[in-house]
Amino acid sequence: MTATDDPHKLALPADLATKQQLARDWFEHLRDEICALFEQLEDEAPPALYPGAPGRFERTLWRRGDGLADAGGGVASLMRGRFFEKVGVHVSTVFGTFPPEFARQIEGAEVDPHFWASGISLIAHLRNPRCPAAHMNTRMIATTRSWFGGGGDLNPTLAIDRHKDAADARRFHADFRACCDRHDPEYYPRFRDWADSYFFLPHRNEPRGVGGIFFDRFRDKSWEQDFAFVQDVGKSFASSYGAILRGRMNEPWTEEERAGQLFWRGRYVEFNLLYDRGTTFGLKTGGNVNAILSSMPPVATW
Amino acid sequence: MTATDDPHKLALPADLATKQQLARDWFEHLRDEICALFEQLEDEAPPALYPGAPGRFERTLWRRGDGLADAGGGVASLMRGRFFEKVGVHVSTVFGTFPPEFARQIEGAEVDPHFWASGISLIAHLRNPRCPAAHMNTRMIATTRSWFGGGGDLNPTLAIDRHKDAADARRFHADFRACCDRHDPEYYPRFRDWADSYFFLPHRNEPRGVGGIFFDRFRDKSWEQDFAFVQDVGKSFASSYGAILRGRMNEPWTEEERAGQLFWRGRYVEFNLLYDRGTTFGLKTGGNVNAILSSMPPVATW
Repeated sequence: MTATDDPHKLALPADLATKQQLARDWFEHLRDEICALFEQLEDEAPPALYPGAPGRFERTLWRRGDGLADAGGGVASLMRGRFFEKVGVHVSTVFGTFPPEFARQIEGAEVDPHFWASGISLIAHLRNPRCPAAHMNTRMIATTRSWFGGGGDLNPTLAIDRHKDAADARRFHADFRACCDRHDPEYYPRFRDWADSYFFLPHRNEPRGVGGIFFDRFRDKSWEQDFAFVQDVGKSFASSYGAILRGRMNEPWTEEERAGQLFWRGRYVEFNLLYDRGTTFGLKTGGNVNAILSSMPPVATW
Repeated sequence: MTATDDPHKLALPADLATKQQLARDWFEHLRDEICALFEQLEDEAPPALYPGAPGRFERTLWRRGDGLADAGGGVASLMRGRFFEKVGVHVSTVFGTFPPEFARQIEGAEVDPHFWASGISLIAHLRNPRCPAAHMNTRMIATTRSWFGGGGDLNPTLAIDRHKDAADARRFHADFRACCDRHDPEYYPRFRDWADSYFFLPHRNEPRGVGGIFFDRFRDKSWEQDFAFVQDVGKSFASSYGAILRGRMNEPWTEEERAGQLFWRGRYVEFNLLYDRGTTFGLKTGGNVNAILSSMPPVATW
């Protein structure tokens, strides 16, 4: 039986406040680890292909709400570098009450619109069209129930790499499969299929990339076991994506490949503004617009 | 009393089929006039500022539906030129039945989901950041009732031009005011305000441009009088926008202004994918995706 089959499994865990703090601390720790890794890749990138000084993350604190009451906030970490053309690794912890129409759509908020949500969200756009873009996010949400959600997907920008048998796609999926299997052999096939249906552009009848995993309203075993899985997803993504980028950063590219990348990024923009749940959630809960829309690519063409 | 106050005013006109044909013929005629004007501007643009051969519109026919039944279609006219970096002037005439959830939101379709819609839609993105982008569309729609809708707005891409006292904005509004006043002195203030609230990005708390006019569910006087107004809107837009472009096409621009234009275009993309009714209507009624999304700017940055 899955979490979505049994609403009782979404009830609040004991000692919620401590668990919220643990989750929040983890998302911020993961952010630090990933930012350090990405800055290291900035340093390693060969200057012949990537002129200029290595980029560094800039952090911007933002507070939610009108300043009258504490409603949480976040830290946006954005780097515009020589290898990473634009990458955001954002954490936020927000709380308050959902607007009525939105509350009706959220598990556990129909009866009481109060919510708490903490998470990390990452989107990377590389200068080199041979280096795939990627997205990852994990989050903990509490209303009158609590659950985790998250996932990651790989977005090769060249058509030649945008199928599941391509080397990068195989590696990315193998790493997520190994991660999932450490926690439950049923997770990978289920969350892979969920990613395939979620990261899809119906109006184009096209997948966004080569998929990955996606899960939501996730509360399957104990809170501790579920949290361990969510932590593993973040670590596995960072390790897998870092290795993929290192493996391709030395490949030179053509003008035509760059044009293909910019064209694909247009599709990415369409997905984010038309379908992405994080974007919708953020815009409807008074999140920081600049942080939410920092997922937009640095340049896109149509 | 306005049309929206009195649903009886939205009832079907006598001899609907003839009127549908007249409307359709007009939208296609207006398309031809505007395409000819824009190609003339392509020819006039000084080669020192706009190298290369003048662009020409390319027309693409598309049919709606799965080919089993006639559900209408359209003609997308797209030009990627030297002065017009990307401009689309599209006509379409589509009919069929709305999906149930969509039918509930459309006047007169709650009881019978059949619809017919014909219109023209234009979006122009200029290479020169000193030349404003613009949008115009007019349409006739029939369900168990019938009405017109449309409007046009001016989108200067430089901050210095993006206020209502700027010369282009004043001219654009004066021309629309004169057009409206020829039909009813109440139209301009009402439709100008409607444009101000419609062409607005709530998540940014920013207007999209300097406005213009916007009207929907419009059936105010006789069908003939309403149709004459709709025709005048199209003609006035073409004449006003053509004059504005001619007035500015000889101005050279800086790299910084170009960067400002590309940045503003990112906002334009956000508006179109998050809020634009035409985009939503098109994607939900099986319109041609390439025609609908040809409104996307050729290049945008974030």
